[in-house]
Amino acid sequence: RVREILRGVGFLLHVPGAMALASLPIAWWGGERWGLAGFLITAAVSLGAGQALVWTTRGPLVFYRYQSMLIAAISWLLITLVGAIPIYISAHLSPPAVDAAIQIFRHPANAVFESVSGFTSTGLTVVSAASELPLHIQWWRSLIQWVGGIGVILLLLAVIPAERGAINLYFSEARDEKILPTVKSTVQAIWAIYVGYTLIGILLLWLAGDPLWRAINHAMSAISTGGFTITDDGLASASTAVRLAYTPIMLVGAISFLIHYRMVVERVGPRSLWQLLEVRVFVYVLVLGGLLLWGHRWLVGADTDPVSALVLWVSAITATGVTSVNIATLDNGSLLLMLVGLAMGGMAGSAAGGIKLLRVGLLIKDVVGQLRRLRATPHEVVVLRYNGARITPAEMARLGHTALRLVGVFMLLWLVGVFIMLYWMPDDMRLAYVFFDTASALFNNGLATGVAGPDLDTGAALVLSVLMLLGRLEVFPLLLLVAFFLGRR
Amino acid sequence: RVREILRGVGFLLHVPGAMALASLPIAWWGGERWGLAGFLITAAVSLGAGQALVWTTRGPLVFYRYQSMLIAAISWLLITLVGAIPIYISAHLSPPAVDAAIQIFRHPANAVFESVSGFTSTGLTVVSAASELPLHIQWWRSLIQWVGGIGVILLLLAVIPAERGAINLYFSEARDEKILPTVKSTVQAIWAIYVGYTLIGILLLWLAGDPLWRAINHAMSAISTGGFTITDDGLASASTAVRLAYTPIMLVGAISFLIHYRMVVERVGPRSLWQLLEVRVFVYVLVLGGLLLWGHRWLVGADTDPVSALVLWVSAITATGVTSVNIATLDNGSLLLMLVGLAMGGMAGSAAGGIKLLRVGLLIKDVVGQLRRLRATPHEVVVLRYNGARITPAEMARLGHTALRLVGVFMLLWLVGVFIMLYWMPDDMRLAYVFFDTASALFNNGLATGVAGPDLDTGAALVLSVLMLLGRLEVFPLLLLVAFFLGRR
Ligand SMILES: [K+]
Ligand SMILES: [K+]
Repeated sequence: RVREILRGVGFLLHVPGAMALASLPIAWWGGERWGLAGFLITAAVSLGAGQALVWTTRGPLVFYRYQSMLIAAISWLLITLVGAIPIYISAHLSPPAVDAAIQIFRHPANAVFESVSGFTSTGLTVVSAASELPLHIQWWRSLIQWVGGIGVILLLLAVIPAERGAINLYFSEARDEKILPTVKSTVQAIWAIYVGYTLIGILLLWLAGDPLWRAINHAMSAISTGGFTITDDGLASASTAVRLAYTPIMLVGAISFLIHYRMVVERVGPRSLWQLLEVRVFVYVLVLGGLLLWGHRWLVGADTDPVSALVLWVSAITATGVTSVNIATLDNGSLLLMLVGLAMGGMAGSAAGGIKLLRVGLLIKDVVGQLRRLRATPHEVVVLRYNGARITPAEMARLGHTALRLVGVFMLLWLVGVFIMLYWMPDDMRLAYVFFDTASALFNNGLATGVAGPDLDTGAALVLSVLMLLGRLEVFPLLLLVAFFLGRR
Repeated sequence: RVREILRGVGFLLHVPGAMALASLPIAWWGGERWGLAGFLITAAVSLGAGQALVWTTRGPLVFYRYQSMLIAAISWLLITLVGAIPIYISAHLSPPAVDAAIQIFRHPANAVFESVSGFTSTGLTVVSAASELPLHIQWWRSLIQWVGGIGVILLLLAVIPAERGAINLYFSEARDEKILPTVKSTVQAIWAIYVGYTLIGILLLWLAGDPLWRAINHAMSAISTGGFTITDDGLASASTAVRLAYTPIMLVGAISFLIHYRMVVERVGPRSLWQLLEVRVFVYVLVLGGLLLWGHRWLVGADTDPVSALVLWVSAITATGVTSVNIATLDNGSLLLMLVGLAMGGMAGSAAGGIKLLRVGLLIKDVVGQLRRLRATPHEVVVLRYNGARITPAEMARLGHTALRLVGVFMLLWLVGVFIMLYWMPDDMRLAYVFFDTASALFNNGLATGVAGPDLDTGAALVLSVLMLLGRLEVFPLLLLVAFFLGRR
């Protein structure tokens, strides 16, 4: 049993190594040859350890759900640590001229925080002036978001033979109960779609006026709903055209890749897609929530610019977390709306974080079903509709329960996270801000009021890193890993 | 169908009338004969309307779940309105000498708020100096809490014949899925226990040094976990002895009356009771939570008095909401702990509000069951324990789902409530305080940071009143009533 887990981890450890090798030309092209060292060491560690594990654990590999979840948990922990290596090494090797911005990563906790934030596509950062980072570090941050958003396991599945139970491995990454990557070609098609959308995103941003380098990095971080930027102030000084171009890229990243696959490969039309509960919830949340935020801001006399409300709302629900507005300056009502949007997140099976709109939809459906059941006469049969099919309220409850359980666990983690975070906060810190930034980590969003920023304490950085991983893997793989080490039944 | 609902409401409308009649001697004895008018008018309205409804709807009465819930919703709305009548009338009739404290109830919204807060045993108040209220109003506030805490429907069931389906009527009051009051004698035994505990509570407080009148009122509001006081500052100037005597009374009120019945009537021992999930959760939450709060306050250098931490924590989890500490002066961590305690609340089937510890226990059990199921090999049978019996994780999930659904709905209402409340709040109001006091209303607790107090706007008072009723009836009866009037399927 342990052998299979180690073998799976070994395969996955190749991923950051391959990513580091692919990043070598950037350091070369950017004239930052001192940056090659970090990538080379990362590749050596990653590929060396991965190959060693694969070689020493020969034999057939069957992934049951339990092993898969442990593999996902261990691999994500190791991969995010490996991802911190080039950042940490470049911070120490950087010549004095480019020292300022990257200096902060000389502290290993900051490098790990940035790597976790990248791979989990959260986008919280300790960098105060991202525009001054070396080009290869800007690229590495964008790349880990781009891969992490869609999933490191999905990257592997596109390459390795579809072994028995690979689907369980995929589930464990929370990307999600719908795509069935038993066929390698499906996974490859999804990757092709992802690359295609990214290229279109780069083109869009470039046409809107962004320089090419910024367009590349921002498209990668937007489509993965990651939210790292290579500017110092997010989108605050971006033109309206750029902000508008940014919006569809974020939305595409927050739409389930099953739906992209159906639209692009299977040519399914909008009418069938509208049957899906999640699509409806997505549209309703996007439109009604956006109007609510805009209307509220108009009511309380805040910024009435519809584009800025749109970018705020899309950034919240897609879990991208890039904004043109300083979150700490929002009024209480807007902050609350953003928090709700941030907690809901995007679609299951997309690159977005959060509770996922499917689960929100299931909760609503389940409550409606319960009301209809209560209103029914004793012998009346109540029928609900779900994704176009007819189901009973009891079936609805079963569907809703897994969703609700996860929501409950998320809420609990959020509370515990906030409580621990408070020990590093000054006495006069506003509790709502701690709640907001902790939720931002847990739901992989990246919007921040300033709690999670350059002044983050080491302890708080580690707490947030754990929350980001818990949120990205949807808790249970890491809980199982803890239970595994505690050896409890 | 409507006939049966009106008949049920008619029966229940007698309750506040009988309460008003029983309160006449207090006004007489207190030398406040001008206070008789309010009680007489209340009795006339209540008994007159109630009798009129009962007379005009003759016929057999069968309570299905749906009708029962509508009856509960309508009756609670009407009874809380009727309960505001003596407060409102006395405010207008009071002689100038006693004018100051009661003046605020000349505004009908404040009288309704106080009545709703009383009947729902919430304990939020707009009175700033309760010690200066006329005695019969002090009494009325205590009495509506005392009856409302255990349930107005339970009062009725002790008197009327146990008609078919009366159990459904009882369920609709959220007092709860465990006592089976099909036998009138059970209900009467529960009332006898309640009266007995109240008398013991009065004795305890009196022995601890409270004057008799205060002991009577405070015992009634503590056992019902209501939390109105006849002092101006809660327990802030109470002696340590009084505060210690207050604690067991609150705890008794937060223990399921089924458990009281078993202990007192059926003489069930502690060993069998310890089998019950809810009993364990109650003890763990009480002890560990109390120690956590005390330890935290010690760590952050706040008040280290264990008695004040004990009273705070017991007040939070029993939903009594009486305190010796100003909530607005708590540090962020203590505020968060209190908020968690307040949201959890006491046992199902007790007088306490909140999510209820049974539901908290079911959530934890369900998550543990899910983890064990994930760890199991494909053919392993996982067995959990619940209340001493063996059940499967699937059965656990079914049990947990109803609980979780309600938690989800509560969270949603809380968010919506906070968002609406914000429109009456000053710009610089701390969001956490609005969250706290809104939760206090929704979970019928009564602790407040000051948002809900003498300065409450009319609109905000009505929002909080609705939340208190939603919390007290556990949402669904009122949702059904809304659906009934909207006429939706
Ligand atoms: K993000
Ligand atoms: K209370």
